[in-house]
Amino acid sequence: MIYLDSAATSWPKPAGVWQAMEHCIKSVGANPGRSGHQMAVQAGRLVDEARELLSLLFNITNPDRIIFTLNATESLNLAIKGLLKPGDHVVTSSMEHNSVTRPLHVLQEKGVEVTKVVCSGDGSIKVKDIESALRQNTAAIVITHASNVTGTLMPLAEIGQLAKRKGLRLIVDAAQTAGVFNLDVSFMNIHLLAFPGHKGLYGPTGTGGLYIAEGLELVTLKEGGTGSMSHIPGQPGVLPERYESGTLNSVGISGLAAGLKFVRDEGTGKIRQYEMSLTSRFLKGAEKIKGLRIYGPAELYERAPVVAFSLEGKNSGQVGTVLDQQYNIACRAGLHCAPDAHKTLGTFENKLVRFSFSYFNKEEEVDFAIHSLAEIAAIPPEKFNKKEDKSCGC
Amino acid sequence: MIYLDSAATSWPKPAGVWQAMEHCIKSVGANPGRSGHQMAVQAGRLVDEARELLSLLFNITNPDRIIFTLNATESLNLAIKGLLKPGDHVVTSSMEHNSVTRPLHVLQEKGVEVTKVVCSGDGSIKVKDIESALRQNTAAIVITHASNVTGTLMPLAEIGQLAKRKGLRLIVDAAQTAGVFNLDVSFMNIHLLAFPGHKGLYGPTGTGGLYIAEGLELVTLKEGGTGSMSHIPGQPGVLPERYESGTLNSVGISGLAAGLKFVRDEGTGKIRQYEMSLTSRFLKGAEKIKGLRIYGPAELYERAPVVAFSLEGKNSGQVGTVLDQQYNIACRAGLHCAPDAHKTLGTFENKLVRFSFSYFNKEEEVDFAIHSLAEIAAIPPEKFNKKEDKSCGC
Repeated sequence: MIYLDSAATSWPKPAGVWQAMEHCIKSVGANPGRSGHQMAVQAGRLVDEARELLSLLFNITNPDRIIFTLNATESLNLAIKGLLKPGDHVVTSSMEHNSVTRPLHVLQEKGVEVTKVVCSGDGSIKVKDIESALRQNTAAIVITHASNVTGTLMPLAEIGQLAKRKGLRLIVDAAQTAGVFNLDVSFMNIHLLAFPGHKGLYGPTGTGGLYIAEGLELVTLKEGGTGSMSHIPGQPGVLPERYESGTLNSVGISGLAAGLKFVRDEGTGKIRQYEMSLTSRFLKGAEKIKGLRIYGPAELYERAPVVAFSLEGKNSGQVGTVLDQQYNIACRAGLHCAPDAHKTLGTFENKLVRFSFSYFNKEEEVDFAIHSLAEIAAIPPEKFNKKEDKSCGC
Repeated sequence: MIYLDSAATSWPKPAGVWQAMEHCIKSVGANPGRSGHQMAVQAGRLVDEARELLSLLFNITNPDRIIFTLNATESLNLAIKGLLKPGDHVVTSSMEHNSVTRPLHVLQEKGVEVTKVVCSGDGSIKVKDIESALRQNTAAIVITHASNVTGTLMPLAEIGQLAKRKGLRLIVDAAQTAGVFNLDVSFMNIHLLAFPGHKGLYGPTGTGGLYIAEGLELVTLKEGGTGSMSHIPGQPGVLPERYESGTLNSVGISGLAAGLKFVRDEGTGKIRQYEMSLTSRFLKGAEKIKGLRIYGPAELYERAPVVAFSLEGKNSGQVGTVLDQQYNIACRAGLHCAPDAHKTLGTFENKLVRFSFSYFNKEEEVDFAIHSLAEIAAIPPEKFNKKEDKSCGC
């Protein structure tokens, strides 16, 4: 199988990832941060190691400001709902994933004002449009680093400068960029950085995190046992415990630590360069296919290794099905949990097919994907769309 | 090492658990419920299988009423905060874990009234005391099935009858009992059943769940991508997606499915019988140790396989440290994230040592633990308490 769905979760993982997980579950299987015995302490060290590796990756001074969650969606919920209160205004983009838009939708019903800055047809945003949207009660900007549909990169450093100048909090969804693009919370003035562990950081599913800037105290999403300060009736103020109630996914976090070591050892520069070379190869091949339309920025440097496209006259869900069933290519067709983005692109009705590349894809796989799409493009629409579309991962 | 800390997380796990996880991460590593390709569909099936196994275990008619979470704490937060609204009154016990008391503490500040029924010195509760605490605006009873400190079993079937008679919702924390004691949501009239995946169900850390009774719609804790109905701006109403935003811990859930198969194949009756025989063996041995005081019910049938005790004149944290460092016995000393329980027992200041047994413990391990405690008990207090207590996993 050719796996071009790493924007959903990366696969395969580096061998070190499951080796670390096997070691954890077999030999360090106690509950980290709960009991005081040696194996519990060792389990705690595995978790701490992952925090330290993340600190180095994102230039975070204090590893305890990193919270482990189930996934980036939980991180975004904690960031958005933990920060904003009724009466606040928040600015976001029209290219966001439902993990941003749906928590904001809930907050809107509770009196938070939301402005969605409309992006261009290629998914890009103008910083001046963000600035124009600011109001006296604007508390934060919430933005993805790269669209999960088109891969369009947002000008994060400039947005960070704007946020700094205006005294706003910046919440970043790094679901598509963590491990691939530079993310420096200090330089970029990021107050809340939400990231998945299982995409570009090559950890297993069940891992995600949130960086919370020094001095920022969020309303908690969950409360419970923290393994420390158990005597106080409310949630303790100290990090990371304040935001990490209940047993951590120590097995998954061990795997994430191994994924982070892989990223560190290979280097994000090398990873990015390779993934972008695959993206470039695909884009060049795809532009020769008649009826294939690529969405997103024209320039490679404005992109993450995520490409969305349509084939003229062909149902995108059906294209995904044929790629899967006839060519054994795994990708994602549909709305990609980002209806706003598809409205921005004008593809809300017809949807798109998405290819996303990882460090483990080969050039030959890209070539085969291009070849396959050329064959599918050549099928007359009336012979193609008759079957019911069942593969539309909406 | 002798591991007597299964109430924190069970260890070791059955071999099938890691095998299933390894298979998932290596061969079924796609994102379940997201894309439509074969590997994503297979990943979805692994998750569905775990839901079906849980349905059989808890006598749940519709597996889609089971939600996967990070841990039982998240499940309890979703249940408690999702159900109760300002003006509601809720009855709970004085033996609850912080995963119940802290969410309730937050709700109290928002206008939910909370009554904590005071339990006896052995941790037991009288159903008539619960009934006496009910008010006109009582919406729910929230109770643990067994204390995580003393193992005291609560009369769940009777409480369920009371809830049914009074038209109340029953929220149950099954952290110490799922996989060991019978839990029948229909017979016991349980509306919300929170359980960890990594204790008596033998799954890995990072897994937990919540059963939500038919007809009950909770306020969501998190919103985001659900992989279905992506076009609607709010969270969809359909289960399980409504409460499962973001990528699921598919690797962990695969392991949980293997743990559930182990429990099914061995049988909870056999598991319970064995674990209670170890508990009985320990209790009989411990009662001969001078100065050792057991907390919790006198009768074995009133207990889960969790035992808390103190040694006269000896700091409980220090006892835990010596057990760990000199005898290589892993247990948990401290407040066990349950300060209310310790206040009920009168041990809030001096804390307790807790042993908890799993199906993988051996009789010889129990005997060695008794022998070790006898030796520690014989040390004169002035020679014992001088070192600083560092192992108190509070």
